[in-house]
Amino acid sequence: MKLTCARELLNHAVQTVQKAVAAKATLPILSGIYMSAKDNKLELQATDYEIGIKCAIDAQVDIPGQIVLSGRYFQELVKRLPGELVGIASSTEDRTIKITAGNSQFNLLSLPAEEFPVLKPLFEKNTTINTLAIKDNVLRDLIKRTIFACATEESRPIFTGALLESTDKDVRMVATNTHRLALKKSILENMNNDENKLKIVIPSKVLNELARLLTSELPVDVHICWEKNKVAFSFEDVYLESRLIEGQYPDYNRVIPPQFGTTATINTALFMDAVERVSLMAKDGEYNVIKFQFNSDEVIITSNNPDVGKAYETVPVITEGTEIAIAFNAKYITDILKNIGTPELHFSLNTPLSPASIKPVNDENYIYIITPVRTS
Amino acid sequence: MKLTCARELLNHAVQTVQKAVAAKATLPILSGIYMSAKDNKLELQATDYEIGIKCAIDAQVDIPGQIVLSGRYFQELVKRLPGELVGIASSTEDRTIKITAGNSQFNLLSLPAEEFPVLKPLFEKNTTINTLAIKDNVLRDLIKRTIFACATEESRPIFTGALLESTDKDVRMVATNTHRLALKKSILENMNNDENKLKIVIPSKVLNELARLLTSELPVDVHICWEKNKVAFSFEDVYLESRLIEGQYPDYNRVIPPQFGTTATINTALFMDAVERVSLMAKDGEYNVIKFQFNSDEVIITSNNPDVGKAYETVPVITEGTEIAIAFNAKYITDILKNIGTPELHFSLNTPLSPASIKPVNDENYIYIITPVRTS
Repeated sequence: MKLTCARELLNHAVQTVQKAVAAKATLPILSGIYMSAKDNKLELQATDYEIGIKCAIDAQVDIPGQIVLSGRYFQELVKRLPGELVGIASSTEDRTIKITAGNSQFNLLSLPAEEFPVLKPLFEKNTTINTLAIKDNVLRDLIKRTIFACATEESRPIFTGALLESTDKDVRMVATNTHRLALKKSILENMNNDENKLKIVIPSKVLNELARLLTSELPVDVHICWEKNKVAFSFEDVYLESRLIEGQYPDYNRVIPPQFGTTATINTALFMDAVERVSLMAKDGEYNVIKFQFNSDEVIITSNNPDVGKAYETVPVITEGTEIAIAFNAKYITDILKNIGTPELHFSLNTPLSPASIKPVNDENYIYIITPVRTS
Repeated sequence: MKLTCARELLNHAVQTVQKAVAAKATLPILSGIYMSAKDNKLELQATDYEIGIKCAIDAQVDIPGQIVLSGRYFQELVKRLPGELVGIASSTEDRTIKITAGNSQFNLLSLPAEEFPVLKPLFEKNTTINTLAIKDNVLRDLIKRTIFACATEESRPIFTGALLESTDKDVRMVATNTHRLALKKSILENMNNDENKLKIVIPSKVLNELARLLTSELPVDVHICWEKNKVAFSFEDVYLESRLIEGQYPDYNRVIPPQFGTTATINTALFMDAVERVSLMAKDGEYNVIKFQFNSDEVIITSNNPDVGKAYETVPVITEGTEIAIAFNAKYITDILKNIGTPELHFSLNTPLSPASIKPVNDENYIYIITPVRTS
């Protein structure tokens, strides 16, 4: 292999695939970045079998070929190389790869390229595959507004992922840890009304990585393909695939109360600041519990930590319906306030022990359900 | 105690004393911030017996008094309080302190103020005390350009601190871990020629904290007072005192070679980038060793890690004297390049096994001595 490419493009490609390089590789080859050069393209890929990422860039390819370099060292090096062009050439004498740029010359040991489990893109394998196209900013929004609600502990794997589902008129993402649930919908204009509805559960860490890569300045299409155990996202020069989490995702529609007896309209920023201050006094308490008293024109927020002290805050609200006292895990409230994205919200409640909802004002496509805490 | 003060001033004072709050307090009272209010001043202080910090701010004091609040909670709370004014009042009924701001009200449990080891400023105790005044930007520069050379492991405590010394014409700071040494001098115009010469060793973590607080926009005087076991720095509204490290600091003048057989003049930025790249291939090697070949018009920098690969860089230099091959711990080189602060430097050497020096071009008041590594 022998090629020349732009340093910035190479750095972009290395940073793109880097998160799929296995951190603690049981198989040494998975700690590497695979590079394949032909037809004036250089394609990089990495996989740890949960997530696989490919990125292709332009290059002047003098001799085609495939190599694998240590992901860790190659990444650190490419980030620091001088000048605008980088040369990559495999030695004919030994297993080293020569990297040149400006006055720098590095000879990196390579790993055996034939051992690398090269990704087989879903859409190439199967022409009758399920597909769906969605704009990158829409997909990023679905992820960002729900993913924080996933479970972090592994005891029930299905909840460590988020559900991506398509219906006749929208695409939606749902995440829950069974104590709180976030649902975000996006209406698709050109919805495909055929049989192949999407309903898959994707690991939250893959979705976080995907959201990090969805950063185009102008909206681009993300093509989603899926089969029984895998999903792939392809956009611009990037292909990302992930294993799916198996199992039955619960019927989230049953968790959303059809109506509420009380709805308060609240300024998001004022509410956020007050909840954060009150939760300071709840930090060492059981379950981080803070109490809310919704009155007609204010919500009183309190906490009491016998070792530290008491907090008392009021925030103006407009409440319709019955006044109610209720308690929540403070973190479950601040999580949604950080992600809601509108200056005002509706906080809707029924009884002190039944699920409540938080929704943006004027947005029917985003809802957050939260279970209260029983206090004595 | 009952007072009102500006939230921003209170936050400044709390952040100033915060680093002296004991993190793992063997004595619970040391986890607190002591506050004393009288004569329209509120004074905060904290100490962990190694470092003590006081900060005084204006306040409208209605009832004078002293209280101690948990440093951790008070700091988190003050940072987040709304509005411009904060009220602080001790309860007449129990041990709680009421903090009010905007619509927020907090009742914090207090610690017994009479147990707090209140700082006794050195200059109040003793009118014949040793003192020296120095501009804050000068002192900050002395610290920043030397402190990184201190030892981090505790096996020889004297090297975990830096020497602060005054002579007839300058003030200087010296730090070493015995493998490398940094010396920075500052000429003082109004040097006091009396007997009381400064020669003390201050813990590096106290100096780091001091440098963090020396951030005035216009130069201000820092008054330094010292006695056998203690030093105090006082500037603007801050008083900081530290224990001294006991023991004999070695004669650093003996470490500085009187002359060199080779001196290379190098562009700092180009040299830094090349050394950083070459050190990538040295990371897992013994002692992080990289090699330098100083020729008349270039320095060749190389490393070789049998598990990773080889690096080869050249940087243009102007070398006067003998050509020489030598090896150093790469970290000891990058540390000084990050702190040297001039676009060009002189790298001076004698033999492959004798100490070398790195100095800024056109600055006789800063020198860094580094011991080479023997390679086979």
